[in-house]
Amino acid sequence: MPFNALTSELIVAFEAIVGPAHVLTAQRAEAAATAEVYADYGRDHTEDLHYAPDVVLRPANADEISQIMRLCHEHRVPVTPRGAGTGLSGGALPVHHGVVLSTERLNKIIQIDERNLQATVEPGVVNEAFQNAVKEVGLFYPPDPASKGSCFLGGNLAHSSGGPKAVKYGTTKDYVLNLQVVLPTGDIIWTAANTLKNSTGYNLTQLMVGSEGTLGIITKVVFRLLPYPQHTILMLVPFRQEAQAAEAVSAVFRAGIIPSGMEFMERIAMEWSARYLGIPLTVPEDVRAHLLIELDGQDLDQLYKEAEQVYAVLDNYNVGEILLADTAAQKDELWRIRRNIGNAVKSAVYKEEDTVVPRAELGTLLAGVKEIGARYGFQSVCYGHVGDGNLHVNIIRGNLSDEMWNVGLREPISEIFRLCVKLGGTISGEHGIGLVQKGYIGIALAETNLNLMRGIKNVFDPHGILNPGKIF
Amino acid sequence: MPFNALTSELIVAFEAIVGPAHVLTAQRAEAAATAEVYADYGRDHTEDLHYAPDVVLRPANADEISQIMRLCHEHRVPVTPRGAGTGLSGGALPVHHGVVLSTERLNKIIQIDERNLQATVEPGVVNEAFQNAVKEVGLFYPPDPASKGSCFLGGNLAHSSGGPKAVKYGTTKDYVLNLQVVLPTGDIIWTAANTLKNSTGYNLTQLMVGSEGTLGIITKVVFRLLPYPQHTILMLVPFRQEAQAAEAVSAVFRAGIIPSGMEFMERIAMEWSARYLGIPLTVPEDVRAHLLIELDGQDLDQLYKEAEQVYAVLDNYNVGEILLADTAAQKDELWRIRRNIGNAVKSAVYKEEDTVVPRAELGTLLAGVKEIGARYGFQSVCYGHVGDGNLHVNIIRGNLSDEMWNVGLREPISEIFRLCVKLGGTISGEHGIGLVQKGYIGIALAETNLNLMRGIKNVFDPHGILNPGKIF
Repeated sequence: MPFNALTSELIVAFEAIVGPAHVLTAQRAEAAATAEVYADYGRDHTEDLHYAPDVVLRPANADEISQIMRLCHEHRVPVTPRGAGTGLSGGALPVHHGVVLSTERLNKIIQIDERNLQATVEPGVVNEAFQNAVKEVGLFYPPDPASKGSCFLGGNLAHSSGGPKAVKYGTTKDYVLNLQVVLPTGDIIWTAANTLKNSTGYNLTQLMVGSEGTLGIITKVVFRLLPYPQHTILMLVPFRQEAQAAEAVSAVFRAGIIPSGMEFMERIAMEWSARYLGIPLTVPEDVRAHLLIELDGQDLDQLYKEAEQVYAVLDNYNVGEILLADTAAQKDELWRIRRNIGNAVKSAVYKEEDTVVPRAELGTLLAGVKEIGARYGFQSVCYGHVGDGNLHVNIIRGNLSDEMWNVGLREPISEIFRLCVKLGGTISGEHGIGLVQKGYIGIALAETNLNLMRGIKNVFDPHGILNPGKIF
Repeated sequence: MPFNALTSELIVAFEAIVGPAHVLTAQRAEAAATAEVYADYGRDHTEDLHYAPDVVLRPANADEISQIMRLCHEHRVPVTPRGAGTGLSGGALPVHHGVVLSTERLNKIIQIDERNLQATVEPGVVNEAFQNAVKEVGLFYPPDPASKGSCFLGGNLAHSSGGPKAVKYGTTKDYVLNLQVVLPTGDIIWTAANTLKNSTGYNLTQLMVGSEGTLGIITKVVFRLLPYPQHTILMLVPFRQEAQAAEAVSAVFRAGIIPSGMEFMERIAMEWSARYLGIPLTVPEDVRAHLLIELDGQDLDQLYKEAEQVYAVLDNYNVGEILLADTAAQKDELWRIRRNIGNAVKSAVYKEEDTVVPRAELGTLLAGVKEIGARYGFQSVCYGHVGDGNLHVNIIRGNLSDEMWNVGLREPISEIFRLCVKLGGTISGEHGIGLVQKGYIGIALAETNLNLMRGIKNVFDPHGILNPGKIF
């Protein structure tokens, strides 16, 4: 390991930078009876993994982060940046220990620029808090991961997070205009300009987005915003065949409709979630899957017209009775079922794979996942953003042996990923590679691509101290 | 200069790769009476600049390009990739001579995938030919630069070109899913996957887009497509004050309307174009500028509703009589005037600056440009994509002295660019830096940013042979 251990001199230096109250160690946490809070800085939402930080720093701004990075660069101490810790690929885990750098105090919405439909925010702002703040002035920030109530915008940027609205509105990457970043060397840059178009040098903004905290620490973001869509209509469509649900998605687009949500739930996913929520729900015997389709816009009459067109498309498939939700309460309940599949699955032990393929291939992928599961003897709960071809495959521990769970699943997971790639897809749509998918990256990316990425990493971080052990 | 001269051995090797018919030299062109065709490979649409290539190669596919690059990498011979040569920043000019590598024979639309709303194409396909091909199956590829009738998609990718529709639909970068690229070393990679979402390693796709042919040669592109919008409405709105036109743009967005075109033409731009086209057009005395506003969608009734809302917004400004074009002929005439401003300006000697600012700052930028022009004694014709804050500033030669034209304008152009940056903008929105804006890059980008870019360039192109002398 090329890294150095943390010294007491460095701790003192950190205290001078961020103030003693924001330098946490295991010993101090023990003394203050906050050991559990401290331990949380060593976990995220990925399985049950834990790695202990040597020290947790909670800087207040870019300048403090710059000073920290200069020290760590000089002393070759690893730094793992951390947002809210809701990641699903282990990206925030300090696998080489050293410093965990939390962005929790960079939590200000600095400006909402109504004239330009832009906002400048810090990375520690919670996604939903930001959505609500811009909605108050009639504006719209679309990216809405399932964890929107707790995840930070900085983490969303690290993985270019999506969410249901990505099918119409794109992912986090599509809303970023400009980033303030502290580089691993301590230098502070802005990546671009606050403009919708930019053809001035290489796109450092999009290089930073999705780099999982390995190239720099984002300290400010300029997002573009949209006018808030005033109305939505939601419909729940039962299908007798999973593959038909996937086909219907393409047909809706071909009819000229771009839904603002297009979610797929296989039968078992819906059942698990309803049971988890205590909602009495009887899915008819012959229903294999549901699509949850949302339309949005400024004009309700227009949405009803579009809904009729969607119905006309669905008439070509073997669907059950469509439930049209047009009250807020009905819509909330349907979205609650969809959003809680993840929580329902979490009540079991599971591994989540974030597969993604061209949208029309989702039926083939799902059938492949089930076939592989049957062959290796595991159950999976599948759901996801079918409009984007993004299928979350949750492999359930069930009665699998330790050997199978810890080692034996590698082969079937590899098979699933190879199928994704064969279908034109890849191994992560929105969760990132982080720690837990690192072993599979060679399935998606050629060695030449990985070498380019390693080269870029080395340009930004010559000592390799920032979030080491991730992606490749 | 670290480059080597072309040898006759290399010419023989190139002939073995692409066939003798596709190896052009000045001598052969002279002999075949095609000297003028050959000379064109040394120019683009940037001012009257010309640099002579030592040899022009016209490979047929990625494999041939790979072999060429391996040779040139080994022998340190510079290679300038070239599309249709419609660039406005000199990006395709072979300033270090050597090889000009034309993509003109990579001109196939390989597949239009109607199920997935995707298409795979080669870089030498003309933008409009691609638009028309996908429209035939009801699909829509929005990016539409003014040169769409002749520019190649590869060149559009090199600069992330925009066009009028960018205000609603984004620029070229927003439609690219995956790129096949030949690296300067000759290696061939695919940058990503054919998926709408991807969180698998660094975003090499967006690093390649806008890199102006300095990091690799794009040999295949997978684009995402949209359903074709069946209807448009176009309106021409005269304003008595330029600044009010810029303000009205923000107000339209705030009303929840996202036009599919939002073009600004100052009075003189409109007059020049009408005169160029021979259209008798009398702009009323008190009109200082026009906005051309386009709405699009699948439902004409809905568009008329939106047009009424736009009228209601415009009522708050001092506008003249609005011309609503709803026949194809009327719409074509208005767009023809807008699109021909560039040609009208080209009939004079001019320099074009591709300024971009946050959209609400466009009025301030325009006033600044005029003030700087008055101070330094030059006339400018300004127009552009006001919905994106992208203003094309055309400085007219007029009676300026050689000294002023060749050297003296550097200072006022720098002033214009510094104003852009002060307003949160930058020095190129869609034309790129290329050769002619290279001297100004330091106004937009800090030395730290430039060093990162140089480092990335070095990772991709360790001998610096690909499109040398551009951007930085």
